[in-house]
Amino acid sequence: MKLYQALAHEISQSILDGVLRPGDRLPSVRQACASRNVSPSTVFQAYYVLEAQGLIEARERSGYFVAVSAQPLPPEPDAPSLPDEDAVDLDVSEQVFEVLKSTMTREVVPLGSAFPSPLLFPMAKLARMMSRSVQNLDPWATVDDLTPGNARLRRQIALRYLIDGLHVQTDDIVITNGALEALNLCLMAVTRPGDAVLIEAPTFYAALQSIERNGLQAIAVPTHPREGIDLAAAERALQRHRPKACWLMTNFQNPLGSLMPEQKKRALVQLLARYNVPLIEDDVYGELYFGGKRPVPAKAFDTEGLVMHCSSFSKCLAPGYRVGWVAAGRFARQVARHKLTTTLNTPAPTQGALALYLESGGYDHHLRLLRHALARQQASFMEAVGRYFPAGTRATRPRGGYFLWLELPNGVDALKVHQLALAQGVSVAPGPIFSSQKEFGNCLRLNYGHIWDARVEAALATVGGIVASLA
Amino acid sequence: MKLYQALAHEISQSILDGVLRPGDRLPSVRQACASRNVSPSTVFQAYYVLEAQGLIEARERSGYFVAVSAQPLPPEPDAPSLPDEDAVDLDVSEQVFEVLKSTMTREVVPLGSAFPSPLLFPMAKLARMMSRSVQNLDPWATVDDLTPGNARLRRQIALRYLIDGLHVQTDDIVITNGALEALNLCLMAVTRPGDAVLIEAPTFYAALQSIERNGLQAIAVPTHPREGIDLAAAERALQRHRPKACWLMTNFQNPLGSLMPEQKKRALVQLLARYNVPLIEDDVYGELYFGGKRPVPAKAFDTEGLVMHCSSFSKCLAPGYRVGWVAAGRFARQVARHKLTTTLNTPAPTQGALALYLESGGYDHHLRLLRHALARQQASFMEAVGRYFPAGTRATRPRGGYFLWLELPNGVDALKVHQLALAQGVSVAPGPIFSSQKEFGNCLRLNYGHIWDARVEAALATVGGIVASLA
Repeated sequence: MKLYQALAHEISQSILDGVLRPGDRLPSVRQACASRNVSPSTVFQAYYVLEAQGLIEARERSGYFVAVSAQPLPPEPDAPSLPDEDAVDLDVSEQVFEVLKSTMTREVVPLGSAFPSPLLFPMAKLARMMSRSVQNLDPWATVDDLTPGNARLRRQIALRYLIDGLHVQTDDIVITNGALEALNLCLMAVTRPGDAVLIEAPTFYAALQSIERNGLQAIAVPTHPREGIDLAAAERALQRHRPKACWLMTNFQNPLGSLMPEQKKRALVQLLARYNVPLIEDDVYGELYFGGKRPVPAKAFDTEGLVMHCSSFSKCLAPGYRVGWVAAGRFARQVARHKLTTTLNTPAPTQGALALYLESGGYDHHLRLLRHALARQQASFMEAVGRYFPAGTRATRPRGGYFLWLELPNGVDALKVHQLALAQGVSVAPGPIFSSQKEFGNCLRLNYGHIWDARVEAALATVGGIVASLA
Repeated sequence: MKLYQALAHEISQSILDGVLRPGDRLPSVRQACASRNVSPSTVFQAYYVLEAQGLIEARERSGYFVAVSAQPLPPEPDAPSLPDEDAVDLDVSEQVFEVLKSTMTREVVPLGSAFPSPLLFPMAKLARMMSRSVQNLDPWATVDDLTPGNARLRRQIALRYLIDGLHVQTDDIVITNGALEALNLCLMAVTRPGDAVLIEAPTFYAALQSIERNGLQAIAVPTHPREGIDLAAAERALQRHRPKACWLMTNFQNPLGSLMPEQKKRALVQLLARYNVPLIEDDVYGELYFGGKRPVPAKAFDTEGLVMHCSSFSKCLAPGYRVGWVAAGRFARQVARHKLTTTLNTPAPTQGALALYLESGGYDHHLRLLRHALARQQASFMEAVGRYFPAGTRATRPRGGYFLWLELPNGVDALKVHQLALAQGVSVAPGPIFSSQKEFGNCLRLNYGHIWDARVEAALATVGGIVASLA
């Protein structure tokens, strides 16, 4: 991490932690230089980053101040979920499909969508890499790029693990059609119909759909909106249900935005190892952190090869390219074989284009811009929620990703909000689609991965008005 | 069909049927013009096509003659397979993987591979279309191209159905990661663990692997090497086992190369409709016909929406792009939903590139060249089998596709041939990987989709020598 990044990170933590409060004056550049023994340009860069994130603002001739929201931000939800701890059969797919369909027309403001704005991605550079990749496509690529996948791309991915301090063998990496296929292949590799799987509550709906489709049972574990699943409850479930896998998101969980602290990740991996239960780790948002450093995945603490770390380029680089992967540890061969018999391989052109892109450099630069954009957008969304939603609304304040999780005032029916908002041209993702037990009836997930503008603000005003009318 | 194509087709049929025999003189151009009332250029074009296919040869100042093989061609196998008609659990996957792995290194002459030579495809033009597709990629494409897929590509596919006389709704078409994913999604849509599925004997090994992976049972139906499955046996199986699906290849079956006559296809569709059993029709080789006209798929006779017609561009246009589809009839919605929860969607760039390619014209021209190349290569392979393999060897003579199925003299162990050939740098596909019951121990599948040259001929001589040594 560069000096200016470290400084920006430190200040942003102070703001997020409430040590620095809205309206507080920041040290002058001269003071900061002296107190930290850094150059003025380092301080300027740090302040620039924070300003871009909307965390501080410059006032003419007065210096920098912690940004004052026009409205106080909504309070954060603070209680873990309390799902029933039984293993249950699922029946959610139909409802999920219905909601998703509503986000797929251009006319609707897609606050319920799972994708950030495609305008945030370097589509032109990717296009150049794609052209170069297919023009020089070795005829043999159609064979060489067969599962486990393009060797150059797998090497680039292994290098990124190395930079993050993880030792992942290139041979353990299997390229997939997005992370979703990786997750499904992992589930196939370690379960059989009738088995039980440990999940978060709320959880990514695709996990629920996979569990349902494969004839498995789900065990929902109480989950805290900031710090992820409750390990004591997870251990009770391990003892009681002997699940065959645990599927969860350690970084910027969908839909909560929760981030498991490093110690908790380590403890989770050790706990699962004691029970010899594989972890299917969905880490597609890990690169979208707002702090100074990528949060490590649980895979970093895996000594037994039991963690299958799934990720992709869909959320942070190349939406629509459908290139993901899994570092599958001891299950790599099994996963590759399931891939060979279900979709054979990931297309050669998209694999080749991403290998070239990563080799050409510039990915980290793009990621920095993307993170700043998302952090700015989060600030705008938070403020708008404070302004337009009624008292009693709570909102998570994730340190990465692009989802806000809202607890609406008691009694407000999120499915009703979804229907009324859709009638006014706005989609939202209602809480029940993230539940194995029809919970979270008063919760919404909002996607702030859309560029802030009057249309988005009006959409939030619309949803806030609907919630107020139902409260 | 153009006049010259009709004429070429008629003559090639006469040769294949033995009416015209090796060495016979063809009518002079003048005679042919007169007798058929066509122009000289039509006759020239027809003779050119036949010459390119290796079926006739010009002799200086003497005209055209039916090509004389240096060796008599091996006889065709003529007896249908006789599998046990029980429903059985499968355990073949491991053996299939081992054999496939051997075809995936550049050093081995890949006669056992499932792919034709990548040099037969218009990779440069595809690359131009891909460049154009990604340069103009609408940011919304990442949403618009979501399953069921790119609307322009689906329209082009629907148009091709229309040209072939089939009425398929664009809305029934789901774009997939190759035909393999389409086939798997279809199987998912209509079966549950424990169900039985009707298949051919021998059958495409991926069908066996899917059936095994999904915990289904296989019922092998006796199959004729020229005309496909035995309908009487199929009906017995329908009555006895009440299967939930039938999965087969109507055109140029893999591995036999068999082609079901049109009447038989119609009867099959009617038979399955009587028992309300869905047909999963794998038609990836249908475009690779050597006659004058594309053989229709069974889907052409489907009035109930029970036929799921699966195909792709992998075998006839764009290997490595992994773009396939299914016209799924009444199961389209179910198939699309399984796709959404397993791999979400097929990549936008590859879908866009193929839509542009098809819209730009030239696909039919490419297909004609490809068919001629494959027909020529088949002739060379057939001759070489006649020359290098011992008496008692039989070989199918498919009218399309790129597979020969060989019955070796009694007692020759194809798995042994596979091992010995591999040690000498040649792969073959041994019969047992195509069997649910470890049959076809003396059979081989050879891939003639490789450009004929000295290396390929030497490889066939090697395999023939090994077979002779074991006979």
